[in-house]
Amino acid sequence: MSMDEKMECPCVSRRQMLIGTGVLAASTALMQFGGLLTSAQAKDGSTEKWPWPYEKLDPQKTAEIAYEEWYRVFCGAGVINSVVSQLREKIGEPYKSFPADAFVFLEGGMAGWGTICGSNAGANVISNLIIGPRISAAKPEEAFGPAIGADMMLWYSDTPLPTFVPGTPKQPVEIVKTISKSPLCHVSVGKWMSETGFSIGSPERKDRCARITASVAYRLVEDLNAWKDGKYEAKSKWAPGKEFGIPGQPNCTECHGKDIPTAPKPKAA
Amino acid sequence: MSMDEKMECPCVSRRQMLIGTGVLAASTALMQFGGLLTSAQAKDGSTEKWPWPYEKLDPQKTAEIAYEEWYRVFCGAGVINSVVSQLREKIGEPYKSFPADAFVFLEGGMAGWGTICGSNAGANVISNLIIGPRISAAKPEEAFGPAIGADMMLWYSDTPLPTFVPGTPKQPVEIVKTISKSPLCHVSVGKWMSETGFSIGSPERKDRCARITASVAYRLVEDLNAWKDGKYEAKSKWAPGKEFGIPGQPNCTECHGKDIPTAPKPKAA
Repeated sequence: MSMDEKMECPCVSRRQMLIGTGVLAASTALMQFGGLLTSAQAKDGSTEKWPWPYEKLDPQKTAEIAYEEWYRVFCGAGVINSVVSQLREKIGEPYKSFPADAFVFLEGGMAGWGTICGSNAGANVISNLIIGPRISAAKPEEAFGPAIGADMMLWYSDTPLPTFVPGTPKQPVEIVKTISKSPLCHVSVGKWMSETGFSIGSPERKDRCARITASVAYRLVEDLNAWKDGKYEAKSKWAPGKEFGIPGQPNCTECHGKDIPTAPKPKAA
Repeated sequence: MSMDEKMECPCVSRRQMLIGTGVLAASTALMQFGGLLTSAQAKDGSTEKWPWPYEKLDPQKTAEIAYEEWYRVFCGAGVINSVVSQLREKIGEPYKSFPADAFVFLEGGMAGWGTICGSNAGANVISNLIIGPRISAAKPEEAFGPAIGADMMLWYSDTPLPTFVPGTPKQPVEIVKTISKSPLCHVSVGKWMSETGFSIGSPERKDRCARITASVAYRLVEDLNAWKDGKYEAKSKWAPGKEFGIPGQPNCTECHGKDIPTAPKPKAA
């Protein structure tokens, strides 16, 4: 898929929306949105020193683990466990102490509310856990933890998913791919169900979500490996706080139609 | 606010939408949405045994910490740290090993994408971390971790926020309260900005989000304390996967208008 085919919103110019491989990461632009910035203070938490030790993982193997884990702990904890379980074996602490299974609640867009797809949330947990939050970065453009998380949401929104086909699928059928144009569970699942006619409780829908969990895990490990090699470059510069004056997704018209409100501008001093 | 005044969607009957203090928790209904259910397997993770030790906290003090923490780590990590920092002191492990500051990425609805409000996400992290995920519950109706998280999203959606006023506010002004009818950052912040005219970068908007973070922390500790006393009852039974065939929020018309799609039904055997 070329850049020109990526999701875009008519309310926004192509130049503003589309992104290259520039210097600024999404996290940079977030600084405008937030408040004071201070360096991380690892009070009692010995695990609050970043980056955590990391060894490169095999994307294919990771995706297979994520796929199987979906059937135990679902999308969010599936992505998290696909990485944490391997690093517990390869490295040990601090991965052994991280309570990965606590994140089952990310299922169904957080306890069934259809908000952020758990696989996106799980990818953000992992990239920020290993590389660190933006307040731990020496420079804004080196905040690779949140940048990899933001990259994932853009890729998830733009890509016909699922991309991953497991070696031994629980449902040995072709699963239709759809483009969500959103990182939200409700939108992603809803568009797929609308396209295929399968219900939420169908084995096909479940396997579709398991394969998306695996697809995200595959993509996540590719970025983590690139970061480990010093070759990671932020792919997303989606910075709605800075550019549009409000946190949001790059698909304004899907909810707003043509009647997109304008965010209040800063008052003159 | 009476039950009758709570958020509702015209596509759904009042009986389906509104919730009492019944036996079933939101988490129960989620089981229909998910796949296989197995008990938690705390592989290497010694922290994957639930519940974690908990001592009752003072909601007022917790909210004050959350308010201050917003100005360091923002909404999600602010809620998380308001609880974790106190339990590190009162209890020690496993709270000392939990990397709370990693969750800065929850800001702006996850890296600025405007999805789930970080304070809701942070509350879910805490309730599931301490009480445990639903796969760790002996019975579905005892899955109080995800139930408290779901309660928070409903309360957040229904309540004029912020409810909390800090003892020494950074912005010593009255902050207008708005009802988001959604747990999403974009919707919550957008409605408030529309009502008040303040921009995303204004000190008032920042203090509004800091106070919401504190409001959520206050409410979270009330529920955790009730659970500790054996008096917690799930307040939310929002179960869209079961009732409407798709994960979602209870505000269908805000995005769909009157043209609400019907989710595919299970096919006859």
